[in-house]
Amino acid sequence: MNIVVFGAGLVGAPMAIDLAKDNDINVTVADIDPGRLRGLEARSIATREVDLSDAAGVERLAGEFDFVLSAVPGFMGFKTLEAVIKAGKNVVDIAFFPEDPFLLDKLAKSQGVTAVVDCGVAPGMTNVFVGHAHRLLDETHNVLIYVGGLPECREWPYEYKAVFSPADVIEEYTRPARLVENGEIVIRPALSETEMLYFPPLGTLEAFNSDGLRTLATTIDAPNMKEKTMRYPGHVERMRMLRDTGFFSKEPVEVNGVKIRPLDFTSRLLFPKWKLEEGDADYTVLKVIVEGRKDGKPRRYTWDLLDRYDPETRTHSMARTTGYTATAAVRMLAAGLYKRTGISPPEYVGEHPECVEFLLDQLEERGVVYTETVDSGESGASAV
Amino acid sequence: MNIVVFGAGLVGAPMAIDLAKDNDINVTVADIDPGRLRGLEARSIATREVDLSDAAGVERLAGEFDFVLSAVPGFMGFKTLEAVIKAGKNVVDIAFFPEDPFLLDKLAKSQGVTAVVDCGVAPGMTNVFVGHAHRLLDETHNVLIYVGGLPECREWPYEYKAVFSPADVIEEYTRPARLVENGEIVIRPALSETEMLYFPPLGTLEAFNSDGLRTLATTIDAPNMKEKTMRYPGHVERMRMLRDTGFFSKEPVEVNGVKIRPLDFTSRLLFPKWKLEEGDADYTVLKVIVEGRKDGKPRRYTWDLLDRYDPETRTHSMARTTGYTATAAVRMLAAGLYKRTGISPPEYVGEHPECVEFLLDQLEERGVVYTETVDSGESGASAV
Repeated sequence: MNIVVFGAGLVGAPMAIDLAKDNDINVTVADIDPGRLRGLEARSIATREVDLSDAAGVERLAGEFDFVLSAVPGFMGFKTLEAVIKAGKNVVDIAFFPEDPFLLDKLAKSQGVTAVVDCGVAPGMTNVFVGHAHRLLDETHNVLIYVGGLPECREWPYEYKAVFSPADVIEEYTRPARLVENGEIVIRPALSETEMLYFPPLGTLEAFNSDGLRTLATTIDAPNMKEKTMRYPGHVERMRMLRDTGFFSKEPVEVNGVKIRPLDFTSRLLFPKWKLEEGDADYTVLKVIVEGRKDGKPRRYTWDLLDRYDPETRTHSMARTTGYTATAAVRMLAAGLYKRTGISPPEYVGEHPECVEFLLDQLEERGVVYTETVDSGESGASAV
Repeated sequence: MNIVVFGAGLVGAPMAIDLAKDNDINVTVADIDPGRLRGLEARSIATREVDLSDAAGVERLAGEFDFVLSAVPGFMGFKTLEAVIKAGKNVVDIAFFPEDPFLLDKLAKSQGVTAVVDCGVAPGMTNVFVGHAHRLLDETHNVLIYVGGLPECREWPYEYKAVFSPADVIEEYTRPARLVENGEIVIRPALSETEMLYFPPLGTLEAFNSDGLRTLATTIDAPNMKEKTMRYPGHVERMRMLRDTGFFSKEPVEVNGVKIRPLDFTSRLLFPKWKLEEGDADYTVLKVIVEGRKDGKPRRYTWDLLDRYDPETRTHSMARTTGYTATAAVRMLAAGLYKRTGISPPEYVGEHPECVEFLLDQLEERGVVYTETVDSGESGASAV
């Protein structure tokens, strides 16, 4: 199978390397930046220097391959996915674009395309678990998702670094969070309702509302659902300070006769501070709790993950947990395990126990190990 | 006497109003912004719409008057003062420019001009007190200056507002602080060596190294001198965060093909947050401690000030304590009490007890009341 990976960034590159290990997969990586492609060429991975913000070019490029794995930045993700679907190619997408992916459902179905979107760790595996538990339970009452990607080394002032672009991270800090409470979708500001949680051995973390439910808000019938992002304590207040001062605004301001978007300026300054460099160790920490009733009794499913940087392959945990979910999904589709056409958020995949098993096995082979706990949910007041 | 006030800002305007009360003074206020001048015109104060960044124009304008009071922004203050001296006019200056004022000493002397610079509250009255105590003592050992201008209402995230332009305040947060330790000038980063101090009734404040010694570092012979600025706790860490991320940098960065100085951008966003609006109550808090020996015994002089916003005249405390020092100095010169030609930092004025008395009387008439304490300095471990 000939696969093209869109984006040779800190997640795109490890995905290409992972896929290239399969004898029956030929990988090509496309990116606008030849510097990013060079490291992959050294590993005998085929590359293409392409501007992926050009939809017509993307459609032509996708047409040359059997399958697309899209890891472009969020702001251009929707248009890229649309172009791939127009090319009639199956696709796994981890662009995490802000638009509603179901706007492309009709097109994907008419093209006979299977498009699994939001297929990283969170969104991604979190959706898989929620879809899986929802299918197992008779009634789903509460869905709680906690997730954080954190550097091992806590450097003042942000104690944060990531493999994602600052603009995409800032999007999490500005986009109002959709939660479900008592069966209604409610909107809370991003960075709101901060709570302190103890996650050994990482210590105390701060969790805040973020807009991570995404498709779950409409695909899962449960009266209470929320997703929170975790950072080391203090980060949230700093981000609120920047946000509330206008540093994250997309409205251009005029400075000395020049118009500039504060978000662009701030991303530029934060980039060197936030970039997880090669060799910077990091963690992914995650907890998904789904509570409900089964056979008339309360039941709670909990999935926990603490993943670490891999010093041998020098692969960041955020790239491992995000990228290996996507490559596992590619193999799942290639194996014919999942065939639903149209747009599939990962909770649809989670409805199929054999798919969940396949994904978890693939991840475990790569050292990304989730632990599942099933109990009555009555043992303590707090699930965390 | 015909006086021109340069600058109709939050300090310039109250100074003009104060001077206009004297029957023997005719005041004209010059500013580039007609909006600022309008309020003064309503009070029958003469105005001139002038670009004060044009040195030749400043020299011509100064030539029309007997005396100049300069309250232009710091970045243009040095050139403005130079132009006034070239015009041969006596001047009181509160531009607080970063350049060494003594570079203009020769010119001022050759012009027969008396130029009192840094003539606000701090620098300003703080220098007067240090010069005064230094003259009274046989040996001066320690000089400690603490000063803060603070809003009464503590608004998250900065808990700070001022009558000064953000760029001038940021200059305090970036310019390395010169201290004197064991007889040597040492340089510490701005915002360093934060200490918590209890200033009732304001509560606990944070004091940090700032470059406020200015001329004192060279004019006063004392082995230990430092100046610290005070803010409500938390402000310093936020400023360090912005500074350390590059938000205060003067080196242009390129964003989307446009070059911009981070400092200009940040000042633009902070302006609406930091501007003390008309009606916003504020405090000025100050403590000057000078320790040494007199007649073979230890002696300590302490001056304290807690000044508040004047709700009747709607005049900010920062404008009162800064501006009324400058207008008092204008009257002191007009009365012929101080005649030294050349550049005079306020510590030179402080060497004359009759000048100190005059300034304190003038300030007290306007409700700005300093309390002086003289003791042996042996009563406690800490002077604060």
